[in-house]
Amino acid sequence: MKDRILELLKTNQDSFISGQRISLELGVSRAAIWKYINALKDEGYEFESSSKIGYRLTSVPDLLTQEEVADKIKNNRIGKSIIHFNTIDSTNIKAKELAANGAEDGTVIISEEQTAGKGRLGRHWISPKNKGIWMSIILRPHINPMYASRVTLIGAAAVFKAVESQGIRTLIKWPNDIVLNGKKVCGILTEMSAELNRIHYLVIGIGINANVDDIDFPEEIKTSATSLKIESGHPIDRKSLTAEILNNFEILYDKFLSDSSIKDSVAICRENSVLLGKEIRIINNGKETEAKALDINDDGELVVVHPDGTTGVVFSGEVSMRGLYGYV
Amino acid sequence: MKDRILELLKTNQDSFISGQRISLELGVSRAAIWKYINALKDEGYEFESSSKIGYRLTSVPDLLTQEEVADKIKNNRIGKSIIHFNTIDSTNIKAKELAANGAEDGTVIISEEQTAGKGRLGRHWISPKNKGIWMSIILRPHINPMYASRVTLIGAAAVFKAVESQGIRTLIKWPNDIVLNGKKVCGILTEMSAELNRIHYLVIGIGINANVDDIDFPEEIKTSATSLKIESGHPIDRKSLTAEILNNFEILYDKFLSDSSIKDSVAICRENSVLLGKEIRIINNGKETEAKALDINDDGELVVVHPDGTTGVVFSGEVSMRGLYGYV
Repeated sequence: MKDRILELLKTNQDSFISGQRISLELGVSRAAIWKYINALKDEGYEFESSSKIGYRLTSVPDLLTQEEVADKIKNNRIGKSIIHFNTIDSTNIKAKELAANGAEDGTVIISEEQTAGKGRLGRHWISPKNKGIWMSIILRPHINPMYASRVTLIGAAAVFKAVESQGIRTLIKWPNDIVLNGKKVCGILTEMSAELNRIHYLVIGIGINANVDDIDFPEEIKTSATSLKIESGHPIDRKSLTAEILNNFEILYDKFLSDSSIKDSVAICRENSVLLGKEIRIINNGKETEAKALDINDDGELVVVHPDGTTGVVFSGEVSMRGLYGYV
Repeated sequence: MKDRILELLKTNQDSFISGQRISLELGVSRAAIWKYINALKDEGYEFESSSKIGYRLTSVPDLLTQEEVADKIKNNRIGKSIIHFNTIDSTNIKAKELAANGAEDGTVIISEEQTAGKGRLGRHWISPKNKGIWMSIILRPHINPMYASRVTLIGAAAVFKAVESQGIRTLIKWPNDIVLNGKKVCGILTEMSAELNRIHYLVIGIGINANVDDIDFPEEIKTSATSLKIESGHPIDRKSLTAEILNNFEILYDKFLSDSSIKDSVAICRENSVLLGKEIRIINNGKETEAKALDINDDGELVVVHPDGTTGVVFSGEVSMRGLYGYV
């Protein structure tokens, strides 16, 4: 009911709505309306109200709640259910917990803040309050676990497209980072729970430094991390960007499910790659080799040429590039 | 201390040991000895005791506890720590929980009974009390998740060798069942939690119908399941069999870790396969195809020939065989 009252007030932001009208339209008592309005105030919504003329919504909070994001989402599954937290250890940890307990395909976990945000290989991810998009998507694809890595590229392509729709052109660092002016603005962390030929669930964690300020980054990562706001010079509409990511994700993901192909996502990753043509280092289980990145093939693997002239593919190793936030 | 007292009593089962001697040898008070002896009685150990001449161990329980299995284990890691339960929902569920909380590589979870034992694809596994070996091994290999399925074949080969050491020749139904006289006596369920190029942990669940009686099997699975005891006509020493499985597992697993090859395990699975040369059905995501099983290649994949004469490999699909406990 709270969301229906909010919707009614949102569509009438120019004028007051009487308690009587809300009561009649939604079939709810005036005492209950008062209770819901107070609950909304607690969430950061602001109202003008008068016992004579009713209520008018004057301000909505900058929060990535279901109420604030849902109306921008065009999907059938991805993001139809958004579970929102003000603070949490890590959206991936929560998503795995909810998935293990049966959360549905397409459920999205979003937190305003992560106190223990995770990057790949157990690294920490800075996630200050209300300044980024810290979210995880729960997926239950009927695919072989060996194809799970393809979903990371779908995520990277979806983020690229969504950020582009906000007027900012980024580059993709295969397979799971998005960079802007040589610094990281987004990381994707895909985790899975699986049997050998059956995925229980995938969790695609997407962390976007949207409105993170310079002061939020610890000194030692300032050379390697930045935010969309810092680089573009203007604040980002987190709600629209969140919805755009989820909308683009569902389109690309549905194509993948229908024919197992990630051609479209790979094309986006290839055309906007920061790696191709560059000298890179490949780190796999502590072993480091040098190579030149040539291409991303249609299976989403990185094609490289080694110093001895032989070519090979990198499945999902750690890759770093000289000059791109240093060799990490 | 309890295990050291037990060890002392075990090595002197022919004679009484005085409380004074235990007290001196182990540096423990006689009141404490009495407390530990009572704790052991609660676990099913039986003693003769006399205040004059001391204690004598007369009977040990048929339980797969660390105390009862450890002295038969020759390994460096696998089974060095055994966590034992009298009853539990599922050893795989418990193992995943412990692994997520940091349990060490090689930790083994054993339960005398499972109330919700799991087979592949969410199927139930009958696990009556004290009659089987219901255990899960936690592994943390530094391998790419795409090679995780190889560990299932290592498990199958280890079980085959261990059962063979007890004088019973079984056959292996690639990739994860052990059969005897056409019926299932063991199933292996490998689960993993992973990032894209890093395994957090693997859990190898091994369920063996050792001393399960005919009456324990529900009517509808009697045609497809049996136990080592039913088929061989004599009860199985569960402790020795458990230790042998873990010993064989570590040998084969260490070979795999040293060079990523599962040649030895594959050789065992190939030479003792129930599938090779047979007409089979391959079920993958609900789609069913017929084929003839030709070989298991060195990567552990099943090589098949299709009705049109073309050959292919099966990575880890569900496979069934006519006449082998029906098509399931």
